Amino acid sequence: MLKTALSSLSPVELRQLIRRGEYTDQTSGLAPGYTQANLVILPKKLAYDFLLFTQRNPKPCPILEVSDVGSRKLHRFATDIDLANDFPKYRIYRHGVLDQEVTSVEPYWRDDLVSFIIGCSFSFESELITAGIEIRQITEGVNVPMYNTNIALDPAGRFHGNMVVSMRPIPEEQVVTAVKVTAAMPRVHGAPIQIGDPAKIGISDLAHSDYGDAVTIKPGEVPVFWPCGVTPQNVIMQTKPDFVITHSPGHMLVTDVKNVSLKYQ
Amino acid sequence: MLKTALSSLSPVELRQLIRRGEYTDQTSGLAPGYTQANLVILPKKLAYDFLLFTQRNPKPCPILEVSDVGSRKLHRFATDIDLANDFPKYRIYRHGVLDQEVTSVEPYWRDDLVSFIIGCSFSFESELITAGIEIRQITEGVNVPMYNTNIALDPAGRFHGNMVVSMRPIPEEQVVTAVKVTAAMPRVHGAPIQIGDPAKIGISDLAHSDYGDAVTIKPGEVPVFWPCGVTPQNVIMQTKPDFVITHSPGHMLVTDVKNVSLKYQ
Repeated sequence: MLKTALSSLSPVELRQLIRRGEYTDQTSGLAPGYTQANLVILPKKLAYDFLLFTQRNPKPCPILEVSDVGSRKLHRFATDIDLANDFPKYRIYRHGVLDQEVTSVEPYWRDDLVSFIIGCSFSFESELITAGIEIRQITEGVNVPMYNTNIALDPAGRFHGNMVVSMRPIPEEQVVTAVKVTAAMPRVHGAPIQIGDPAKIGISDLAHSDYGDAVTIKPGEVPVFWPCGVTPQNVIMQTKPDFVITHSPGHMLVTDVKNVSLKYQ
Repeated sequence: MLKTALSSLSPVELRQLIRRGEYTDQTSGLAPGYTQANLVILPKKLAYDFLLFTQRNPKPCPILEVSDVGSRKLHRFATDIDLANDFPKYRIYRHGVLDQEVTSVEPYWRDDLVSFIIGCSFSFESELITAGIEIRQITEGVNVPMYNTNIALDPAGRFHGNMVVSMRPIPEEQVVTAVKVTAAMPRVHGAPIQIGDPAKIGISDLAHSDYGDAVTIKPGEVPVFWPCGVTPQNVIMQTKPDFVITHSPGHMLVTDVKNVSLKYQ
């Protein structure tokens, strides 16, 4: 299906398409105006430490919803939903190592799994576009570039690690607007964590992203970095729990909740 | 010590006074501009369900900080602190029943206890005063009136129950200002949950508060209701866990963090 046709689908139509395995690509630009979400699924025995980790690090890990133990449903961000099939792509980590990338985690489901639905910066992109800001990776048809940083997070129990950021090049004269638009949306990462110099946060080369794809930075543009919901994957690689499922970077859940409503919850 | 002298003490001076047992009264109006906090201490085995309950109900239960298991210290909201002594008064609940009210919980401390520090509406009172709004219970020298409501909260594990609200009478022409000031402070309960009619949220008689003291409502004033950090105590009475410690309503922790900084975290 063409991307232009896709972008006219509602969240529930998109999820049904994804559930049937008919769309397995990244989701930036789809269902404009609707909140997209990152995923971490882990066994109940790790859930307290992880929930506390997200409470202590709300910028990279803003929790939108936590499932009940063993449930593949949500109650707040989507109704017609199957958490084991409704992300276009999943990653399975064993002992901190990426073991498999799959389009369904139904065969791996267990009764002790808890799903954490985490805000995603794709959610604020449609507001940036409305404010007249071009989103480079949408224009170039690639995944947003994401980078590991030297920003240490606040540990909780066995979880510790560094922040991952997403980067968007913003024309100098639009940086203030970009800060204002995103600062108003803390539940989807909020304001940037760094404006300008990538070296200050431990990024040596913007042309080589750690996740996603590098994008063009034009003259007069500033790289702007936002806390990213891929952070938990970095934390998982550093913490090495036995078994964790995440989404594949850029391959998000499209929820039924409009971004604008998150501002007033 | 006179209230006027008390109000010039810094948060750490106040906590030391309270720690020595020399101040055991309620804290509204003390250390103006600094965040005050509610308390729930419970055994680790209940901590996941309770943390998830607060995540699902952030308006009455905005978590400021969670201690490490067994620790009487904090790292973010206060440094010189002893959680077992730095609240003026504590309540000990056994099986959902208020068993004791004490000024120190040191004799009851256990290695498996986790402390939840929860935002308090006293924190936004100094901003309301700055905006020209009189806070009636401070003028009258009593505790803020708090009421049980019919607003059911989102359950999590074994925790369920109804919201408790605090009430402040606001002159009609200042209600919009009161909403704007408090809406900007979601980490200390944020905007009101109800403006006007108490019956709509299940309150039958404003003259009889369930916690704290009733205050005068003058002609031309509207009762405005905010989600209240005493809510967990109501939930505990409804859920009946074996052993829980809370603060006594109105007898809060005074932290080292300024309210204004909470807006930009």
